[in-house]
Amino acid sequence: MPGPTRTAPPPALLTDLYELTMAYSYWRAGRDAHEAAFHLYFRTLPFDGGYAVACGLGPVCDFLERFCFGDDDLAYLAGLTGADDAPLFDRAFLDWLGDLRLTLDVDAVDEGAVVFPNEPLVRVVGPIAQAQLVETTLLTLVGFSTLVATKAARVRHAAGDDAVLEFGLRRAQGPDGGLSASRAAYVGGCSATSDVLAGKLYGIPVSGTHAHSWVMSFDSEREAFSAYADAMPNNGVFLVDTYDTLDGVRNAIEMGRRLRARGQRLLGVRLDSGDLCALSVAARALLDDAGFPDAKVLATNDLDEHRIAELKAAGARIDVWGVGTRLATAYDEPALGAVYKLAAVREPGGAWEPRVKHSEQAAKASTPGMLQVRRYSAGGTAVRDVIWDELSGPPEGDGVELLRPAFRGGRRVRADEPLDVARDRALSSCAALPADVRRLVNPVPYPVALEHRLAERREAMLREDR
Amino acid sequence: MPGPTRTAPPPALLTDLYELTMAYSYWRAGRDAHEAAFHLYFRTLPFDGGYAVACGLGPVCDFLERFCFGDDDLAYLAGLTGADDAPLFDRAFLDWLGDLRLTLDVDAVDEGAVVFPNEPLVRVVGPIAQAQLVETTLLTLVGFSTLVATKAARVRHAAGDDAVLEFGLRRAQGPDGGLSASRAAYVGGCSATSDVLAGKLYGIPVSGTHAHSWVMSFDSEREAFSAYADAMPNNGVFLVDTYDTLDGVRNAIEMGRRLRARGQRLLGVRLDSGDLCALSVAARALLDDAGFPDAKVLATNDLDEHRIAELKAAGARIDVWGVGTRLATAYDEPALGAVYKLAAVREPGGAWEPRVKHSEQAAKASTPGMLQVRRYSAGGTAVRDVIWDELSGPPEGDGVELLRPAFRGGRRVRADEPLDVARDRALSSCAALPADVRRLVNPVPYPVALEHRLAERREAMLREDR
Repeated sequence: MPGPTRTAPPPALLTDLYELTMAYSYWRAGRDAHEAAFHLYFRTLPFDGGYAVACGLGPVCDFLERFCFGDDDLAYLAGLTGADDAPLFDRAFLDWLGDLRLTLDVDAVDEGAVVFPNEPLVRVVGPIAQAQLVETTLLTLVGFSTLVATKAARVRHAAGDDAVLEFGLRRAQGPDGGLSASRAAYVGGCSATSDVLAGKLYGIPVSGTHAHSWVMSFDSEREAFSAYADAMPNNGVFLVDTYDTLDGVRNAIEMGRRLRARGQRLLGVRLDSGDLCALSVAARALLDDAGFPDAKVLATNDLDEHRIAELKAAGARIDVWGVGTRLATAYDEPALGAVYKLAAVREPGGAWEPRVKHSEQAAKASTPGMLQVRRYSAGGTAVRDVIWDELSGPPEGDGVELLRPAFRGGRRVRADEPLDVARDRALSSCAALPADVRRLVNPVPYPVALEHRLAERREAMLREDR
Repeated sequence: MPGPTRTAPPPALLTDLYELTMAYSYWRAGRDAHEAAFHLYFRTLPFDGGYAVACGLGPVCDFLERFCFGDDDLAYLAGLTGADDAPLFDRAFLDWLGDLRLTLDVDAVDEGAVVFPNEPLVRVVGPIAQAQLVETTLLTLVGFSTLVATKAARVRHAAGDDAVLEFGLRRAQGPDGGLSASRAAYVGGCSATSDVLAGKLYGIPVSGTHAHSWVMSFDSEREAFSAYADAMPNNGVFLVDTYDTLDGVRNAIEMGRRLRARGQRLLGVRLDSGDLCALSVAARALLDDAGFPDAKVLATNDLDEHRIAELKAAGARIDVWGVGTRLATAYDEPALGAVYKLAAVREPGGAWEPRVKHSEQAAKASTPGMLQVRRYSAGGTAVRDVIWDELSGPPEGDGVELLRPAFRGGRRVRADEPLDVARDRALSSCAALPADVRRLVNPVPYPVALEHRLAERREAMLREDR
C-alpha cells in the first residue's frame, strides 16, 4: 500500500537568485514584514486538452515544512559580490536569513483534483519576503508534477480499462525528473512504474522483466527464455521482438507450457517494435490457440495517449500499455508554464490592497484579490467553477471550495495522505467531468468564471492602469 | 572558479526493475560473471542540429564510484513478490547484491566534447550483471545532460559574443531536472545561472535582480526602483516592463544618475515582454542619449536559439540573453533517445564474441564489437570521425581517440575536473567544427564512418540474422 512521500525535499537554496535579492531589498527597505498574497496558477491547458490534474502538493508541504538556510548556505551567499566587488548581502541580512522560519498561510488544491486555467493551485499569504523566497521551488514542484499527472490521466483515459505502466526513467530529465514523474504518473492513474526507487519511496507497485540484451547475451532466444523462466518462474513476461516477433511468441508459449507444468504461469509477452496492431492480433491468436487466453499482451515503443487511442481504434489486442519517454517528459509540451503572481499587499495592521499585473496580451493579465475557487456539480458531474475573492465575498449557490488550508502561521495543518488517496481522487474527479471536456482531441472548454464583483474590480483596475 | 561536482549521486536503487530481475536471472543461471561490453549512444541529433555536446560524465563517475545497495534497499527488495505471491528475489541474491562492489571498466568521452550519432559516449565492460545494473542511471544522467549542453551550445552560437544567462529552474522538470540543466547549460556555454544551488554546488556564477512582483508591491515603479537601488546599489539591473516599458527605461535612467552620484553604476535594464526588437532599439537610444552607453540591455521571454538569431538579424540591440524554459527543458525535443546496447560477450576466460541487434529500421541496428572513436583534424578543424573496433584493429592515419578510461576494475582512474575545463572544451570543440556543420538550420552532416573491417563484420552479422 503506497504510503506518504519520503524523499528529502529540495533545500531552500534551490531558488532563483532574484528571490534572495528581493528578500534582501525588502529587508533593507524595512518592508520584509509587509504582507502579500500570491497565487500559483497556469494560463493554458497542456496538450490541447480539456483539463489538468493538480499534483505536487505533497512535495510542496515537505519543502515548506523543512525550509531553512544552513550555515554553509549562508557562507556561500556571503561570498557573492556585486558590480563593485563588494558583498551582495549584508551580514545582518544573512543572520536574519539563518534565523528565518516560515510563518506563511498556504492553501492548496488537493493532489489529484481536476483544475483549469487561472484557478489558483496554491495560495501563499504572509510576509512578502518569505512568500517571495518560496516562489521558484513551488513553481518547479507543482508545475512539473501537474504536467505529468495530467499526461498520465490522458493516457489512462485512452487506455480505458487496460493497465498502464510508467517506464520513463531512462529518458527522464535527470534522476529526480524521473522520480517526480513516476510519482505524478501514478497519481494521474498509472498502475505501476519501472522505477524501483519510486517503488521504495512512494510505495508504487514496480514492474519489469528483461531486455533485448538478456536475449542477445545467449546463443538463442529459446535458451535465453529458458534461463529466464528457470530464474524467475513467478515473473513470466517475455520480450519477444529481439529477432522475429511471432517466433518469439512461439518460444514464449513453449515456456508457458513448461511454467504451467511447474504450477506457475505465463503472464504475458511484450512487443516493443514493429506494427503493434497486427503483431498484437497475431500474438493474441497464437496465445489463445495454444491455450493461454489469460496471458497478457504488453506493448511499449514511443506510446502516448494518441497512439494508444489509434491502436485501440484499429483493433489492437493489447492488454497492458507501457508508456515511457512521452509520459515522463511530457514530450509534446514539456513545461506547464505555471506562474506565481502577486494579487494583494498590506502594510502591517493595514487593509489588503488588491494588485493586478496588466499585459499587452489580455490573457496574461493577472487577477487581484484573495482568491478561492468554488466548484458546482449537478448529478455527480462537475458543471462549472467560479473564481471568487474572499475580500469581496463568495458567489451564490452551493459548491465545494477547491483551496484547502495546508499551513497556518507556518505550521502544517494538513497531514500527508497516502498516494493512493490522491490517485483515487484523480480517477474520480476525472470521471466526474463531462465527457466532452474529457475527450483527448478538441475538448469542449469547461466553464470557469470570475465572480461578478471580482470581475468588475479586475476590469476597473486594468482600465485604470491603461 | 567552478570546482568539481558535489551533489549526492543517485542511489543504486534509482533503476528500472528489469535491471534487477536480469541481474538476478544472470546470478541464478550462474552467468553473472560472464562479461559484456555495452555502448551508450544516441541515433539522431537533437533539434535538427549538426552536432551534440557530450555531458554528464562527472555525475556518472560520482554515481559509479559510490554504487552500492544499502540494508533498507535490500529490505525493500526482499518484500517484492511475483505472480505467485512468493518473493521475487532469493535471500542469497540479496546478500550478493549487498556485497556487490563494481569491478567494471568504463571509458567515456570527455564532457564538452562534440559527438555524433552512433558514437559511443560511454563504454561499459565487465561482469554482465553489473553492466546491466548501471544501465538506467547512466542513460538518465548522460542523456539529459547531453541534450541540454547541446541546446546551450546552439543558443551560445546564436548569441555570438553576447552573454547568455540560464534562467530555467522554475519551469524545469523537477528540482534536480533544474539543477542538472543548470550544470549542463554552463558546460554548453552559458555564462551564469539564476539557480543559487547550482552556484553553490558547481561554482557557476549566479545572476538575478528583481521581478514584476517587486514593482507591483510598491505604489509606483519609481518608488520600487528607488527602494531597489538603495538596497542593492551594486546589482543595478531594473526590470522595466511592469507597466510601460519605455517609461520604465526612463525611470531606470533616473536611478542610473542617482547610482552614479554615489559611485555606483546602472548595469542595465531587462525587457521581458512585447516587441523585444523595437523595445531594445528604443531602450538603447534612451540609455545612450542619457549618457549610459555601458548599461546593458537584457532580454528574456521564451527565448531560444532561433528567436535569438531572428532578433539579431532584425537589428535588436540586446547585449545579454536570458534563456529559461526552452533551454532547461530542451523544449522542442525534450529527450535525447539515448540507448545502451550490448555489443560483445565472453565467458570467463573465453574470447569476445560480438553481438548485434538487428531491426526492421536499418538505422536502429546496433554495432558489434569493443568500440572506440577516432577523430581526424586538418588545420585545427575536425574533418571526420571513424568508429572502430578494438577487437579487429584501428583505422589508418593520425587522429585523437574520443573514449578515455574513467574506471578500471571498478577503480576510478580519472579525476574530477573543474566545470570550467569542460566548458572551455565545449567552446573550443564547437569552434573546431566546420561552419556548415555548426549552423542552426539545415546543417551539413559531419562525416562519421565505420572502420572498414568493422563495417564488413556488422554487415555480415546482420545478413546472417536475416
